Amino acid sequence: MTTIQTIATNQTMVKMILDRWYAHIKILNDVLNSLNDEQLQKEVSPGRNRATYILGHLIAVHDAMLPLLGFGEKFYPHLEELFITSPDKAIADVPSAAELRTYWNRLNDYLTEEINALQPEEWFTRHNAVSDEDFVKEPHRNKLNIILTRTTHMAYHSGQLRLIK
Amino acid sequence: MTTIQTIATNQTMVKMILDRWYAHIKILNDVLNSLNDEQLQKEVSPGRNRATYILGHLIAVHDAMLPLLGFGEKFYPHLEELFITSPDKAIADVPSAAELRTYWNRLNDYLTEEINALQPEEWFTRHNAVSDEDFVKEPHRNKLNIILTRTTHMAYHSGQLRLIK
Repeated sequence: MTTIQTIATNQTMVKMILDRWYAHIKILNDVLNSLNDEQLQKEVSPGRNRATYILGHLIAVHDAMLPLLGFGEKFYPHLEELFITSPDKAIADVPSAAELRTYWNRLNDYLTEEINALQPEEWFTRHNAVSDEDFVKEPHRNKLNIILTRTTHMAYHSGQLRLIK
Repeated sequence: MTTIQTIATNQTMVKMILDRWYAHIKILNDVLNSLNDEQLQKEVSPGRNRATYILGHLIAVHDAMLPLLGFGEKFYPHLEELFITSPDKAIADVPSAAELRTYWNRLNDYLTEEINALQPEEWFTRHNAVSDEDFVKEPHRNKLNIILTRTTHMAYHSGQLRLIK
């Protein structure tokens, strides 16, 4: 196996995972664009989370990717308490559906820019929640794995948002 | 970059994706084990698919992985018409919740065995729906990508099954 083939394999792997990330970003955007702000206030199933809560949750989780990937500080650190630490309806004063759409689009535009700027070999370096020492033993804890785990997380919740009529 | 590092990287990539596959198989099994057969007959949200349809759909999609990955013929080819080609409730005579559980477990046990037997380098060879010629141009259409795309698909539907009470 030559060095050239090694680089090709890294590029292939990055493409595989980024293709999934962007495919699921599109699925989510298509669902969001098919719903108005009033529909986003509905529960995805009786007694379950409202669509706005799920959207807020996805924004908070994706926002936390910024420091993990070395893309800078979080845009919306206050959303962690509203949409990760607290369940839906526990806090009355949350951003509106229209505000959440703006947050989502702004964050997603920035993430896209930063993701596209990263070189294939950089994706296999450690993310910022793992030490150099642990990374030697656990090389799967790399930046690309952050994209992968957040893609399956996003898919899980997109399936729920899709149920809103 | 040395040959040893190349092999380590392939192993790392395989681990990243198989970890997600098994994590989402566990999430799905945990949801299935938390529901009885009667609950599996419920719709995940009013007017949406029943849980049995989603389970049948996942069995049919995972069954189609067998020929794609060179693991042999499908176990349940008749499920394609019931759970992929047709929407829920279009066909009255479908397997019971108990039968679907048996199908799921049998298929999943077999898939686990075959997946574990594949070597890291084999995961980066073409799957059976792509020609040798196309694979040279599109090396991301490999066996590992089948696991990846079916993992995000499973996550999407697991999020829906999770809504049943």
